[in-house]
Parts: sequence; structure tokens; C-alpha cells
Amino acid sequence: MPQAITPIPLKIAYIGGGSRQWARSLMFDLALCPDLTGEVWLYDIEMESSRLNERFGNWMQGQPGVLSKWRYIAEPTLDKTLQGADFVVISIQPGTLEVMGQNIAIAARYGMHYPVGDTTGAPGLMRGLFSAIVYAGFARAIAEHCPNAWIINYTNPMTMCTRTLTKVAPGLKVFGCCHEIFGTQELLAELVAQHWHEHPARAEIEVNVIGINHFTWIDRAIYKGRDVLALARHHLEQPGALHVFTRAELLERVRAEARERSDRMYANREISEEELQAAGSFVALHQVKYELLRRFGILGAAGDRHLAEFVPGFTRSPEELARWGILMTPVSMRIRRWKDAPLRTQSIMEGKQPFVIEHSGEEGVQQITSLLGLGNLMTNVNVPNVGQITNLPLGAVVETNAYFSRDSVRPITAGALPAGVLSLVSRHVSNQEMIIEAALTGDKDLAFQAIFNDPTTTAPIDDAWAMFNEMLQASRAYLPGWKM
Amino acid sequence: MPQAITPIPLKIAYIGGGSRQWARSLMFDLALCPDLTGEVWLYDIEMESSRLNERFGNWMQGQPGVLSKWRYIAEPTLDKTLQGADFVVISIQPGTLEVMGQNIAIAARYGMHYPVGDTTGAPGLMRGLFSAIVYAGFARAIAEHCPNAWIINYTNPMTMCTRTLTKVAPGLKVFGCCHEIFGTQELLAELVAQHWHEHPARAEIEVNVIGINHFTWIDRAIYKGRDVLALARHHLEQPGALHVFTRAELLERVRAEARERSDRMYANREISEEELQAAGSFVALHQVKYELLRRFGILGAAGDRHLAEFVPGFTRSPEELARWGILMTPVSMRIRRWKDAPLRTQSIMEGKQPFVIEHSGEEGVQQITSLLGLGNLMTNVNVPNVGQITNLPLGAVVETNAYFSRDSVRPITAGALPAGVLSLVSRHVSNQEMIIEAALTGDKDLAFQAIFNDPTTTAPIDDAWAMFNEMLQASRAYLPGWKM
Amino acid sequence: MPQAITPIPLKIAYIGGGSRQWARSLMFDLALCPDLTGEVWLYDIEMESSRLNERFGNWMQGQPGVLSKWRYIAEPTLDKTLQGADFVVISIQPGTLEVMGQNIAIAARYGMHYPVGDTTGAPGLMRGLFSAIVYAGFARAIAEHCPNAWIINYTNPMTMCTRTLTKVAPGLKVFGCCHEIFGTQELLAELVAQHWHEHPARAEIEVNVIGINHFTWIDRAIYKGRDVLALARHHLEQPGALHVFTRAELLERVRAEARERSDRMYANREISEEELQAAGSFVALHQVKYELLRRFGILGAAGDRHLAEFVPGFTRSPEELARWGILMTPVSMRIRRWKDAPLRTQSIMEGKQPFVIEHSGEEGVQQITSLLGLGNLMTNVNVPNVGQITNLPLGAVVETNAYFSRDSVRPITAGALPAGVLSLVSRHVSNQEMIIEAALTGDKDLAFQAIFNDPTTTAPIDDAWAMFNEMLQASRAYLPGWKM
Amino acid sequence: MPQAITPIPLKIAYIGGGSRQWARSLMFDLALCPDLTGEVWLYDIEMESSRLNERFGNWMQGQPGVLSKWRYIAEPTLDKTLQGADFVVISIQPGTLEVMGQNIAIAARYGMHYPVGDTTGAPGLMRGLFSAIVYAGFARAIAEHCPNAWIINYTNPMTMCTRTLTKVAPGLKVFGCCHEIFGTQELLAELVAQHWHEHPARAEIEVNVIGINHFTWIDRAIYKGRDVLALARHHLEQPGALHVFTRAELLERVRAEARERSDRMYANREISEEELQAAGSFVALHQVKYELLRRFGILGAAGDRHLAEFVPGFTRSPEELARWGILMTPVSMRIRRWKDAPLRTQSIMEGKQPFVIEHSGEEGVQQITSLLGLGNLMTNVNVPNVGQITNLPLGAVVETNAYFSRDSVRPITAGALPAGVLSLVSRHVSNQEMIIEAALTGDKDLAFQAIFNDPTTTAPIDDAWAMFNEMLQASRAYLPGWKM
Repeated sequence: MPQAITPIPLKIAYIGGGSRQWARSLMFDLALCPDLTGEVWLYDIEMESSRLNERFGNWMQGQPGVLSKWRYIAEPTLDKTLQGADFVVISIQPGTLEVMGQNIAIAARYGMHYPVGDTTGAPGLMRGLFSAIVYAGFARAIAEHCPNAWIINYTNPMTMCTRTLTKVAPGLKVFGCCHEIFGTQELLAELVAQHWHEHPARAEIEVNVIGINHFTWIDRAIYKGRDVLALARHHLEQPGALHVFTRAELLERVRAEARERSDRMYANREISEEELQAAGSFVALHQVKYELLRRFGILGAAGDRHLAEFVPGFTRSPEELARWGILMTPVSMRIRRWKDAPLRTQSIMEGKQPFVIEHSGEEGVQQITSLLGLGNLMTNVNVPNVGQITNLPLGAVVETNAYFSRDSVRPITAGALPAGVLSLVSRHVSNQEMIIEAALTGDKDLAFQAIFNDPTTTAPIDDAWAMFNEMLQASRAYLPGWKM
Repeated sequence: MPQAITPIPLKIAYIGGGSRQWARSLMFDLALCPDLTGEVWLYDIEMESSRLNERFGNWMQGQPGVLSKWRYIAEPTLDKTLQGADFVVISIQPGTLEVMGQNIAIAARYGMHYPVGDTTGAPGLMRGLFSAIVYAGFARAIAEHCPNAWIINYTNPMTMCTRTLTKVAPGLKVFGCCHEIFGTQELLAELVAQHWHEHPARAEIEVNVIGINHFTWIDRAIYKGRDVLALARHHLEQPGALHVFTRAELLERVRAEARERSDRMYANREISEEELQAAGSFVALHQVKYELLRRFGILGAAGDRHLAEFVPGFTRSPEELARWGILMTPVSMRIRRWKDAPLRTQSIMEGKQPFVIEHSGEEGVQQITSLLGLGNLMTNVNVPNVGQITNLPLGAVVETNAYFSRDSVRPITAGALPAGVLSLVSRHVSNQEMIIEAALTGDKDLAFQAIFNDPTTTAPIDDAWAMFNEMLQASRAYLPGWKM
Repeated sequence: MPQAITPIPLKIAYIGGGSRQWARSLMFDLALCPDLTGEVWLYDIEMESSRLNERFGNWMQGQPGVLSKWRYIAEPTLDKTLQGADFVVISIQPGTLEVMGQNIAIAARYGMHYPVGDTTGAPGLMRGLFSAIVYAGFARAIAEHCPNAWIINYTNPMTMCTRTLTKVAPGLKVFGCCHEIFGTQELLAELVAQHWHEHPARAEIEVNVIGINHFTWIDRAIYKGRDVLALARHHLEQPGALHVFTRAELLERVRAEARERSDRMYANREISEEELQAAGSFVALHQVKYELLRRFGILGAAGDRHLAEFVPGFTRSPEELARWGILMTPVSMRIRRWKDAPLRTQSIMEGKQPFVIEHSGEEGVQQITSLLGLGNLMTNVNVPNVGQITNLPLGAVVETNAYFSRDSVRPITAGALPAGVLSLVSRHVSNQEMIIEAALTGDKDLAFQAIFNDPTTTAPIDDAWAMFNEMLQASRAYLPGWKM
Repeated sequence: MPQAITPIPLKIAYIGGGSRQWARSLMFDLALCPDLTGEVWLYDIEMESSRLNERFGNWMQGQPGVLSKWRYIAEPTLDKTLQGADFVVISIQPGTLEVMGQNIAIAARYGMHYPVGDTTGAPGLMRGLFSAIVYAGFARAIAEHCPNAWIINYTNPMTMCTRTLTKVAPGLKVFGCCHEIFGTQELLAELVAQHWHEHPARAEIEVNVIGINHFTWIDRAIYKGRDVLALARHHLEQPGALHVFTRAELLERVRAEARERSDRMYANREISEEELQAAGSFVALHQVKYELLRRFGILGAAGDRHLAEFVPGFTRSPEELARWGILMTPVSMRIRRWKDAPLRTQSIMEGKQPFVIEHSGEEGVQQITSLLGLGNLMTNVNVPNVGQITNLPLGAVVETNAYFSRDSVRPITAGALPAGVLSLVSRHVSNQEMIIEAALTGDKDLAFQAIFNDPTTTAPIDDAWAMFNEMLQASRAYLPGWKM
């Protein structure tokens, strides 16, 4: 792999630069990359958050283990942040967690229970609606201030955010990153270990990725020339591979797992009920993935909590979700965690918590170096369909493998989805397209049609309309100019 | 309109020639058409039924009002029936009413309640599965014995039957006929009468028809240059146009309407509970149609009992259906009516009931004369998509207007479905294609995927699988060679 | 056919209202239609021409045989002409005949000889370039002043003119009319007379029309249920049906035919050499049509002089054209005829020539009455492809049959072009699209690529570039803002 | 890059195993690859040729520099050759060089002069016709005897051969290899050297490859992040970059170049006139490539002798070709070289000529090791379009980059051809498809339509028909069952 002799100087614009998780990941990964240097401009609607990240980023420069020089600059205007940027990173919170929580609660009152609620289903599509409005503005600003920059999106709903950028400003160079595939590769690596007694690294499981973000599929998985998907099908037939949980059983299982990590997560204290619920998101039982493999022949490749939101039936009750090993993630917990994050940052800078720098596991910085010509890379990304998936619409944002080289992200042709899966996936593609169109034109009816058309929406059409209107009310702060 | 100087001699092959309703319609319409003459060969797996129709058809020849000469021949073999036919008419009962009733009952146990159950939803798709198996045989036989004949299909599920013929033998000349559009035109004519105080005949409401059978839409309706769809939207805003029924209210309404027709239908005797239910199918309250217009902007153009089976939410309970003015049609009633039909035929021939010949209201004979060059005709039919609907797949059977002329049925371009409706319709198109593919290849998984993917299927995937297997068991007589 | 009780009042806007041929046709046909009345506004860049037509039109009102009342108004501004129009008729001369003549002469110097030069080949594509620039302005003006008007285009190049309107303002209701198909129907009627000894009217030959204007095809022709295309194939095999002409033979044939019409055309005086050449355009020998039928299996359906410009080989020399029975139309003759026309109009009004009113044979007024709801009509038109031709691009303007009814022109699905013909036709479709794009964006390279890509362009690429630049120079008055 | 610990044992089936050039290349590359071992079965309709290669291959085993063990087996039956093969290599001579020479000569008599004549134009399409007939047989045999083998095709016409395999047996794993792109990369490397004074290796010029074999294009070329296509455009503007040659000048240039290589090629003796002509094929003046870049904006990426056969104008005379720096390759020379090859092989084995083993520069063996899991590879190949080129038909064989990994060749999405180039390329795609269809169905008319539709065919349709029939006569030995 080629290496830069002197570090390449960059301006990175970070939209959502007050981010409490992704910003940290990026700072660490940049700090550990000796090939790059430069400035990171942090823009956020909450200026105090970006100020904190600015302080933390600059404080890091003097810490041990840091291999490169970066200046962090919190900037109150989007335009100045973007001016002349080489890369734009976006990770924002569309709307607020509170609004998302309200929409999830409204859906629940109508009998639909979303374990995550940030991607699809009525709450996810509502979130897409806000996001598209905000991202349309980003698209125009980037097209004006740094049209040649590469844009890396981390915000969910991934597909709708990324698609809005390319729909509003078709020339932009955009891709969206998500690590859900990694988890599926790890699951397959575990199956290899269990059945073949070898211990591959995640990346050694070569996969063909095909679908849309959080509803991605793997139709080919190879480890050293052997078919790991066939292995997974074999695994399914073993007794115990598939299990129908009671809620009590599931909680017990989560509690056990939580206890194992207790020292790190809970400082060895008693685990509260709310924490227990939240812990559910760490327990991956893969029952949905396995069931989809069993019935559709190829493997759903995202966390079960996401997959379950794309397919009818799972979300009809918390009990139903529990049967498949899924606990609802309490939004309250997310809010708590989000609120606590700055305190932790502060306490690290004050030396109250140790500063441990390590790679985040994300690929963002590796992608940046590839785009700068420092070594090619094959990985999965979300980009507009230019043919990589034969039977999804051109232009729709899809997730497949792509080949990164200097100033170039070329998707690999991933082939076609089989008929049964195609029908599941394409419905979401059209809903996402409708939501973006609705956002850009202010078309309330079209937004409703998308939400009513979501396969997990079970309410009759008049109830669905009432639910939709409640959500619009709850979200009105993020729908400027919409008539309600 | 041109007229034949001497009647044109034809051989018509009737598959399902023992039919108890459609056969009668055809016989009457043929008898009333002076331009045609010839033989009608009746083929049926129930030979005694076709023998009865043979007797009745030939008996008719001597009756007053009959304008043309036809010989009716009940024939036990399909091959001989088809040999050299000019037209093939197909109206069969795929499986039996009993099996259909069982499948509807199975679905009900899993929480899905289909008021008709012959077109879509799990019971309708199961029926499609049998039909495709049988129709594949018809296709091959017709291709062998009368490849240039025009085939007119009346059997439901219309789309799957018609599509199987053209999929198995692409050269065949096929169209499928359905009169549901007529009812919607009549509704629009009533609105014209109510609001504009004019009294158009059904056919004076010019409509653009677009969709698939029983889930057809009208996106343009003109009466004397005025926009009748705009009128319907105006009507919706009037108080009382939309109404949420209780079951009691609905039954009362049906009872009232039944009483009005009491003399004809019930010979002025008391109406039984079962009859009352059955009568529900005659009461058209159009609430589903109106609601679709309100939310999707264009008009669903089939009976509400059909429309409700294509859209999620309506079928979740009999009460839900009742809210929209729909009563479940008891299959028992259908079976009774089907069993009684021969007695009525018999009693007419014996002079116990009067023989009254009149046009059936169907267009079959008019279509036949058009295809023979005796006058062009514009009407709605079900044929493979050759571009008449821009955004549905080529090859799929769709319903639009078409222009009939000598030996030619050319669909009119109907344009594109709007995004929200497209998503509803295209899901069914792909399910229907999957069912046919499953039937032709014996692919049980694919059949399941279609059924699970039906938007009215609300059961979780494992329950849906159980339900599907129960239906396979119930239907095994009609799935030769399938492993269960 | 329904008839208006009182005439329907209309405002017709005529762009190119000084037209010396089409305006007359329209005036006559309107005068003969008792169902309509109103105003015709005449707009032309040559105001004196529209003034003459204004005078003539109004003068006609008092003449015998006129059945309806119209007021003709010459108007110097486009905006006022269009304001509130119900119909817009466009027949203009893009550029001038002199420029067209120069471009034809330039092409000839490079070895390419176009008998018409107004539709395709380098001169026709250049004409398309001017037209698209002018038509883009029309599109915007119509969209502003009378967006609901129906637009009828008669200008050549038909496809590029019509397409520009719908490309620039997608909502416009446009169709283009051309009578070339009629001539092919007449040829087929003659074959019926010759071989079957019946004498059908043109319209009794039912044809399926498929292709693009002047390069249209007929893949099905039926007369009373018999296959007239098969008859044409049979005819080809007769001795003498195909003939290779020498130029002398051809001139002799033309002279003979010209003499027959001598009284009308030449007032019984001697026919000059130039007139003889011009007369060639009236002599239809159909050799190109027959040859295309022989080699491609379906019938080219336009005058041979047009067809020969779309297919390689014919245009390589005047002698080659003569071999196929085609004489070059001298542009000088066209100019003469165009210049003489006002004198004839003047002398009619002065009573020096008799005023004889008769139907033009065009269908424009019949189309207008259909669109007003006075009887449906099936005829061939040029409109954007919405699926009527399966294997040409959506949006491209194509020619097929269409069904006219109130406020509606719905193309009939015409099917697919066979592979060999498709390849011939689709090349022109892409060239036409490139020319329009080049006109709208001022892209000289793209315009060249289209011209170089024309199948009749035989010059090597550097010569073709030189030719193209000569044409740009000759046409610079009609390419405002183009760099040369 | 991973390396096999012990060599992987393979059976390679070589169809055309008597090949006098490609077989040698493969033998050498296999001999130099320590990771592989096994058997190469040689099948050829000329058994003595494969016997000679068998002897030579086995003789090599004992020679110095050979790093792996292979057994060569000449086998008279195709079935046994294929039985259980892991890889199938195909390099045959479709028809004979004599027939190809005759077809080239026939075309010349009709005014069309093809410098190569093996890929496109009437002679190339005729060659495609034979090839498709033969390859259909290969497809069926491979599908029967080694359906999981990877097939590597080297035969021209590349596209038609490769496409026939996948059309006849869609499940086969096929790709076609051609090194013409390498030459274009070398040209670009030279431009870098000349203008930027750096000396990249060929593979350091990263290119996006898009098109069809021998008519491939490069729309992006990057060297160390700098745009080499922009450099090429800059180069064009320098005086002398484009030059119009006289034939005398060109011959002088070739003679000079030939003299430089004189020792190797001509053993320092006088160069005959025929040899001089032949030498022309080694002189690359790139005038066609540059002209295409100038007019179409992207770079034609194959030898000029090939490119000139795909675009109208160049082939109208030998002088025209010479103007662009291209000499006709005398088929006589090819035949001579082909006849002499065995003598050289013989004399090496007899020790009369030195045995020098070196890499052939082909990538075949590297591709084989990639497919076996020994290191991934990105290179250009010819495979069916699964979306890698957005605007060419799915299924057509196209050339782009692809990513080789274990048992997988995944094309990279290459994007869309610009409109002007698309029109040039897609015409050839449809011709190639028509030729294959004609070959598989014996449809003479369709074959003619393809040949007439070739953009370099300038003969009028009746002459073209005569030419086509002469070619059929000349080729009748390779068109079994065709009526002429």
C-alpha cells in the first residue's frame, strides 16, 4: 500500500460537529493516521456541543499515542465551515430524540411497536421527512461552497439522507457508511468457528452485499473458498438454532449477558430495569436473520432490531418482538446516554477518566486515505444505484460493495435480488423516494401514502391518517411551512 | 357499423362448459346475435353439467326471441373440444368452492378476513396457484389444437389465469373480461344525476382505466367534457358522503335493500340470516372507493369487497369490514346457489319457470363480432402489458381500455400510476408473478413468499408459514406432485 | 356521431399564420365545419404574409359554400396571439428555404445528396437545430399564455419540433400531424384493386403504424380481414414490380405523368427542365418502400423521397437516387412556388381566379372537433412515447395510431419494432434527441456527433467536421449566440 | 497476496489446443507459476497441431526456468477434453484465414476496406456468424461435461463468441480477455513521460474502461491523482500531434520502424513489400484515437486498426486508411506466419533455436490464480452486462473493469456512455445480437440486416445484398444447413 511521504493537508468540514459519539470516533481515527493532517471545522446547531468537541480535539493534540496534527475549529456558520473543504462529514440528529420518542409512542398507541424507530416504519419515515428538509439545505450549501468535496454521511435514516443530497444536487460526490454488515460478517465468522473450527477475522468472510441500508442482504459468503451461506443453512437445521423466546426468558438472557459486561458498563453496580431494556440492544440472537434465511434463501444482513422493522409481523407487539429475541430500546435511555456524554468528555480532559485512544472500528479515515490515492479499498457503502443492483431503480440509494481508489468510489455489480426479497425491498425504496419527494415539495398526501404503504403499518387507512396527523403535530417544529 | 350479410359460421370451444352462470349468459347473447351461427363445444370435468347445458342450449333453438342458429355439443375430451376452434371461452371453478371456503376459514383463524377470497390475499393466491397449474395445461392444449383462436377468459383470479396462458404459450391471443368497471361507471353516473341533474348511461362516462383486475383505478372520468372525478372529490366533502358503520346499522341497511328486491330474489318470503349476509354483496356503499380517492387522489374502480382485499387494514376483522359497509359473503351461500342452479335450468325446460331471453350485460359476443370485423369497440380488458401502463412490468397482465378491431385487440396507452398507487399495485403484480412461477416450477418457498408478501397478511412469518401449510393440506387435491 | 347544436366558439392561435399553404387548408376546413366558430389569430415574423391571410380569411366569410363564421386577426406579437387560445396551430418555415438550399448544396459537395433535406441527414438535422431553438421559445410562451390549449404541429422536422415543445414544457398537450401514411394506405388500396379487384377507400386499409415521422413503418395492414401486407409481399415477386431505373428512363416516366396533369399544373404549355425535376416529387414509384419490405419484412410507410434519406446508400449520388425512381427536388422550384403563392391569393380575391372551396384532405379540423367531444377518431399522430412503442425510449416523439376523444389523445399500443428495423430507427431517435439537447444547451460538439452519426453521412470524420462548420456558417443567422 | 503452500492441481481443457500462438503463451505462463500444477487437455479439429503442442508442452517440463509440473494431452474428442475440467480456455480460428481473406476481398470489391476484418464490418460479422454456430456447440458441451468450470475466451470476434456461450447456456461462468486496453494505457504512459517527465508503468495509469471489445473507451485516466485524459486533450492541441499522412509518407515511417526491429524480425535481410505492409500493424500512430477524443470527448481504447472498423468513413479506401496512419494487414502474411509457426516450434525442440521462457504479458494465469483464491485482481474483461454499463442492454457482452476473487468475477460499475458515443456503440451491440440470433436460428435475412446496418457498410441495399450472398457462398463450408 502506498504511503504519503509527508502528511497530506486537508480541510474537513464536520456537519453535526457537536456529535457526541461519531465526532469522537473520527477524532481518534484521524489522530492515529500519520498520513493526514489539517483542520477539522465543526458546525452544529448546538454551538456549545461543537465548542466542547473543539476543546477536546485540540486538547488531544498533546496526548500520548497521537500520530498526526489537527486543528479543531468550532464555527457557527455552515457556509464558512464548508468553504473550500476537501471532505464533508455529516452526522446529525434530525429532529430531537424527544420527537423521535414521541413518534414511536404514537405508533405504539396504534398498535405498531418499533424497537429502533430511526429508519423505517412510521417513526423512521417521519424522521426521513425532517432529514430530507435539512439535507436539501446541506446539498445546496455544499454545491455552492465545496462542490468537489467528498461527502461522508453517517446520519440515519441513511438512505433518505444520502439520497436527498444526490437528488437535490446530482453532481455531489457522496457515500453513506454503516457498520451493520460487519456484525453479520462476525456472526458468520462465529459459525465458521463453531462448525469448522477455524477462526477467521471478520474481513476474511468475503460477502456480496445487496440491498438498502439496514435492510441489506448477503447472497454469497465465502471463507477460503468454502460457502459460508450453505453453512448457515446447515446450522439452521441443528436443534436449538431457532428458538421462540418468552419475554421472561429473554430478559434472563439479557441480564446474564449484561452481568458479564457489568464492570465496564455498570461499574459493577445493580442493573436497573431501564438499563436492562437498553442492554437488549447489545444482545444479538439473530433469530430474525435466521428466519429470513430459512424462508427467503438469502441472509438478512443487519441487526435483528433493524430487520424486524422492515418486514411485516414482528412489530405487532412488544411480546412478538420478544419472541424473536428483541427488546424495545427505551428512548429515555438514549436520551440519558446522550445527555451524559459531555460529562464524560469533560472528565477525560480533567484527567478524572483515563484517555485511551484506539481505532473506532469505523472505516471513515481509511476511506479518506483511499480517495487520496493511498491504497485501494473494497467495502460496503450506500450510494446511488448506477447499475450495481440490476432490479432496483437507477438513482435510488442502495448498499453494495464498492471499490475505493483515488477520487473514485465505484460500486461493484452485485447482481439482482431474488423475486421474493425484491418485493420486500422495493416497497421500501419507493416509500423512501416518496418521503423525499414529499419533503422537497411539501406534499402531505404523498408523505401519508408512504407511511400507509409501509409493510409494518397495520392500522386501517382512517386510523393511519389520524396517527400520521398526530405525528405531524408532534414534529411540527421540524416541518417549517407545512400546513397541519 | 358493418353487418354480416349472411351469419358468420364459428366453432366456439367452451372450457368449463358446465358452468352454471356464464354459460347461460353466453348462450343468451349468442342467441340474440343474428350475425353469427355455428357450434359451441362444451367441455367440463363434470360431464353431467355440460350435458345439461347442451340440452338447454339445443332446447333454446326452438324458443321465441332466438335470432340465430347454434348447435351445442357436450364433449368429454379437451382436445376434441379445441380442435379447430375459432374462439375459446374459459370459465371454470378452480379447485372447488369448498376448498376456497376452507382456505378463507383458515385465514380467518390467523386473523385475516376476506369478504370474497377469490382473487388475492392468502386464499386468492392459493386459488391462483391451482388455477395456474390447470391453465398451463389449457395453454399447451390450445397451442396445439387451435393456436389462432381468440381466448376469452372469465375465470377468477383473472390476472393469474390470463397471465398463465401467455406465459406458457406466448403466441396465444388472449384477453380477460370483467365487468367491475361498469359498476364504477354507474356510481359516477349516479353522482352526475345527484349533483348535475343529468342522467347519463353508464357508457357515457368516459373513463381511463389503469391497474390490475379487481384493483383497477380510474384517473380520468369525463361526461360531456366535464370532469366527473372532480365531482366525486367534491361529493366527498359533503356531509354524510363518508360514514362509519356499525354492524347493526349495516345489516339494517342491507335488510332494507333486500326487501326492495324481495319479490325477485326471495319470492316475497322471509329473508334468512344467511341470505341477509349474502345480500350484502349487492349493497354497494362505496366507502372504500371514496376513501381511496380521498387519500390517493384517484378512484379505485372495482367493488369495495374486492378493493378491500388489496389494501392493508380492512380485512383485520369482520367488524372492521362492516365499518366500511362490507359484509363477508358466506361461502355456504355460494355453494347453495351453485347447487340449485341446475334445478332452475331443468324447470325452465320443463316449462315450470318462464323462459325469458335477454342480453346478459356482458360484452363477450360484442367482442367476438368486433374481432370478426363487424364494428370496432373500445372497452376495458385484461391483457399482457405491452406498454399500456408505463410503470408496470412488460408482460404482466394489466387492465386498461383497448381497441377491438378485426383480429386485433390493441390496448390504449393508459399512462402511469401515481407513485403512491403504484406501490400498492406493483406489490400485487409481483406476488401474482411469483405464484405463477411457483405453480409452474412447484416451488413451495416462492409461493409462500408471495403469500407472506401480500399486504393484507398480518401474521408473523412463522405463523404465516403455518397458515400456508394448512392451506396446502386443504388444497392438496389440486396441487398434484407437491411435497407437503 | 354527436353534433353541436350551436357552433362551439373557439380562439385558435396560428403561429406561422402567414403560411402560404397550410393556412389556406385550415381556413377551408374551418369554413366547411358548421360545428365551430370564432377567431383565428395569425402570428408571423413576416407581418405582410399574415395580413394577406387575414384579408383572405375575412373575405371568404361572404363567399358561397362557407358554412361557419370566423374572424381572422393578424397580430404582430406572439403573446397576444396566444393569450387564452383554445388551440395553437404551428406551421412555420424554420430558417429560410435559401438556407436549406445552401445546406443541401454543401452536403452534395461532400458526396451526400438529399432529395428533400428537411427532416434528416445533415441538412435536416441542421434544420432541426434552428427549429428547436425557435420552438423552445414557443413552448415557454404557450406554457405562459395558454397552458391548457391543444397544440397541433405541422412544421418539419416534425419529430424535433414536437419533441422540443414537450421537452421544454412537459405539461403541454401537443401532437404533430403528417399525411405521409395516407399515401402508403393508397398504395395498398391500389394493390388490392390490382390483385383482388376490389376498390377500398384509403381509410378502409386498417394499418398498425409504428416508427418516427417520415420513417414510419406498417407491420399490419388489413382489408376486410385479409392481410394486405402479405399481398404486398406477393406483389414483389411478380415480374416488373421492382425495377432499376436509368436517369433517362425515369425522366421519361416523369415527363409522361407531368403531361397527364399538364392542364392543371402547366396550363398546357411546355414543361421546363426545372419543372420536370420538380414534377418528380409527384411520381411515386415505391421502389424504396418495396425494397425495405423485401429485406426487412415490414413496410416503410412514407414517401420514398423521405425513406431514402433515413437509410444508408440511396443518397450517395443523384444517379443512385434515380435508380430507385427518385429525382432531387430543386429548392429553386420550392422558392419559386413559395414566392408565387401570394399572387394567386390576391388574384382569387380580385376575382381573376375562381374561388373553389373544398376539403383539404388534412384531418386537423376533425381532430379539433374530436377534442371538443364531437365524435371519437382513430388516426396516426406524432406524440411522446408513453409506451405505445415498447422498444423506443419513453419521451421520444414517435408516430403511431391514437384515439382522439374529448380533451384526450391516447396512443394505441403499437408493439415493438423488429430488431433489424429497430436498429435503423433508434439511431435516428438518438440523433434527434442529441440535436435538441445541443440546441437547448448550445453544444456544438453534440450537434456534430448527431450529424456524423447519421447513417447517410459517409464523409470521414474530419471532412464531416469541415462540412458541419460550413453549414453552421451558412446558418449563422438562425443560431444566435453560437460560437463558430 | 496469499500463496498456495502446495501447488493446486487443475485440469485445464484447451479448445483450439493446436493454436500456434495463444497455446504457447499459456504454456509459458503456466510453467512460470509455482502455485499450480496438473493437466492441460488439448482439443483441436487439426489433431496434428494439438499433437505438436502436446509434444512441446511435455518437452518443456525438462527445460531450465520451468517452475511447475504440467502434463499435456492431445485429445481427439471434445467431450473427453472437457470432462471434469476446472478451467476451459478457448482460442480457435473460426472458419479459416483463407475464408476471412476472401470475405475481406469481397468487401473491398464493394468499396469497403477493412484493415483487420475479424471483429466487425461485413467480414467480421460473417466471422461472428460462423463462430456463433461453433460456440453454440461448445456451450452445450461445457454445460454437460463441466458446468462449473470457468471459461476463458481469447477468440475473436470476442463479443460474439463470449455472448454465444452465455446466451446458449446462461449458467456458464465465462469471461473474455483482450489486451488492447494495455496498449492504450501505454500510450497514456508515454504522454505522461513526454509532458510530465515521469515514467509510469502501464498499470499505474488507472483507467475506467467502458464499451465493447475493440471498441472500448476510457472516460477517466488517473496517474498519481492527476487527470491523464486532460493531458491527452492538451497534447492534441500541440502542433504535429494530429497529422494527415500520404501513403508514401506512411510507408516510409513504417519502413524506418521496421528497420529498427530488423534484426529480430527480418534477420537483417531486405524487407519485402508484403512484409512492409504487414509491419504496418506494429506501427501505432494513434490518429484515430486522437480524433475520436477530439470529437467525442473521451478516448477510444483499442488499436487504431480496430477502432477504424467501427466508425464510418475510415474504411472507404486504402488511401483513406493511410491518411490516418493505417496500413491494410495482408491476409497472405497472416497465413504465411500461421504456416511457419510449427517449423519454429519444431526447431526449438530440436535445439536449432534457443528456448527462452518468459511471461507472455497476458493475464490468463493470474486470473486463474485469483479465481482459486490466491489474491484478488482488478482488470478489464468481457462479460455479460449485469449493470456495469448503465445504458447498454442487460445481457449483452461488454468490456469494463472487473474484480476477480475466489470463484467470482464481479464487474465494476463503469457508468454510462455519453450520448454521442452511445449511439456509435449501441448500433454494434444490436448488430452483434442479431448475428448471434441469426446463427442460432439460421435466419439469413436477420444476418443481412445486421451487415447492412453496420455503419461502415456504404453499399446501397441491393449491392449489399449481392455482397452478402457472395460472402455466404465463400463461407458455405462453415454454415452447415444454410440455404443459399
